[in-house]
Amino acid sequence: MKENKKQKKNRNGKKQDEGRVADMITGRNPVMEALRSGRRMEKIVAAKGGKGYIKDICSLAEDKGVTVLYRDRKDIDESFGAGSQGIVAFVEEFRYSTLDEILEAAREKGQDPFVVICDGIEDPQNMGAIIRSAECGGAHGVIIGTRNSAPVTAACEKASAGAVEYMKVARVTNISATIDRLKEEGLWIGACDMDGERYTGRDLTGPVGLVVGSEGKGIRRLVRESCDFVLSIPMEGKISSLNASAAAAILIYEVRRQRDGE
Amino acid sequence: MKENKKQKKNRNGKKQDEGRVADMITGRNPVMEALRSGRRMEKIVAAKGGKGYIKDICSLAEDKGVTVLYRDRKDIDESFGAGSQGIVAFVEEFRYSTLDEILEAAREKGQDPFVVICDGIEDPQNMGAIIRSAECGGAHGVIIGTRNSAPVTAACEKASAGAVEYMKVARVTNISATIDRLKEEGLWIGACDMDGERYTGRDLTGPVGLVVGSEGKGIRRLVRESCDFVLSIPMEGKISSLNASAAAAILIYEVRRQRDGE
Repeated sequence: MKENKKQKKNRNGKKQDEGRVADMITGRNPVMEALRSGRRMEKIVAAKGGKGYIKDICSLAEDKGVTVLYRDRKDIDESFGAGSQGIVAFVEEFRYSTLDEILEAAREKGQDPFVVICDGIEDPQNMGAIIRSAECGGAHGVIIGTRNSAPVTAACEKASAGAVEYMKVARVTNISATIDRLKEEGLWIGACDMDGERYTGRDLTGPVGLVVGSEGKGIRRLVRESCDFVLSIPMEGKISSLNASAAAAILIYEVRRQRDGE
Repeated sequence: MKENKKQKKNRNGKKQDEGRVADMITGRNPVMEALRSGRRMEKIVAAKGGKGYIKDICSLAEDKGVTVLYRDRKDIDESFGAGSQGIVAFVEEFRYSTLDEILEAAREKGQDPFVVICDGIEDPQNMGAIIRSAECGGAHGVIIGTRNSAPVTAACEKASAGAVEYMKVARVTNISATIDRLKEEGLWIGACDMDGERYTGRDLTGPVGLVVGSEGKGIRRLVRESCDFVLSIPMEGKISSLNASAAAAILIYEVRRQRDGE
């Protein structure tokens, strides 16, 4: 692990550890997904005498050369909460992708780019759920704002059921500028908001970006104005809006449905 | 409030208070929705000097004859958590609907019945989100199992953004028997699970029930076997399943899309 201790200067001139242990992932599925995806880990702490899935995870970890420490389940619950399900992985900091890497991923697959842009999703549960739906629905990347959105933390990772290990997530300082850049690259950008056209009426089979906003505040005005069109999900009842991650799931799968020619 | 103190015997012969205060609802939107829907309340506790939306809620409460007690915001945060947003309503126990009331609601609207059946949704956040999506998507009711699903509690109510006030929710002891009853009523019942037909390929415009299961365990075998067909959402990435409430949202809105002839 010596190379992990090497230090380099980052863009701001601050020293940072290369591959330093920065976060922990708890829970059976998230730890398994992190291992499968090849995420670098310092160690795993697992419940002694763990059976079934816990045992599978530990075998895979040992095959991959990751140190596994066995502890009493009671101690793990006390230290990391019962939600950890008897397994905790100490992993390297999440590596964000660049916008170019997301576009390149689409090109490599020979597909029209499909990205999800989060404007002001502050709740890590919602953020994780959106990344998970984007991964399941075949998007090439998720773009989040540095200032007004939840970063990819352990809570987000857990809510994503490990999808953050496979989905490219880019962090950008200026969402509007990023939208302009994506438009130059040929993407059509749709804001998911009220008072727009019905989401099923628009052709979404070409290069496309969907902007989802927070439940409380919606999409910021300037961000909405930089979009090409506004898509609305019809509300049949008395409640005026869906949960942000439910709305995102519906729209992501509308793109999927259209792209699959259904 | 004298009539609220009357006692009657319930089906098990146990005495129960009629209209007894049983739960509290916290947060601005859930309290407002509860008030608007006419849910009976004992009292509201609100932050002193609250402005804007808090003030609107208190005015409406007073118009409706609900006692409003004003307290320091700090005290409210300490007693009920900062998530209460300075407002707490003490409400009567959630009144579940019967299966017949759900079917009657469809008949009254002159629509084919559309129900969502939850098998083993234990997380109140997911349950609330599913009820919310069902309300927004125009379902007539949600059916939950008494033994293996989260009941409608304050946490569920909050996650539903108040949708539980408008959506009929029935609790049943035996999901399979309920499915048989719904089939007798002419509904076609689809299990949302893996290894079924693509969800977009099935005509869902007639009387329909969708069964959603828990993320970990899926739909129980006997429940799945009592369904008419199995609907699957395609998974394009490496993660094998969507969040239960995301999957429910996608399916509910597929019914909506088809019913709206899109």
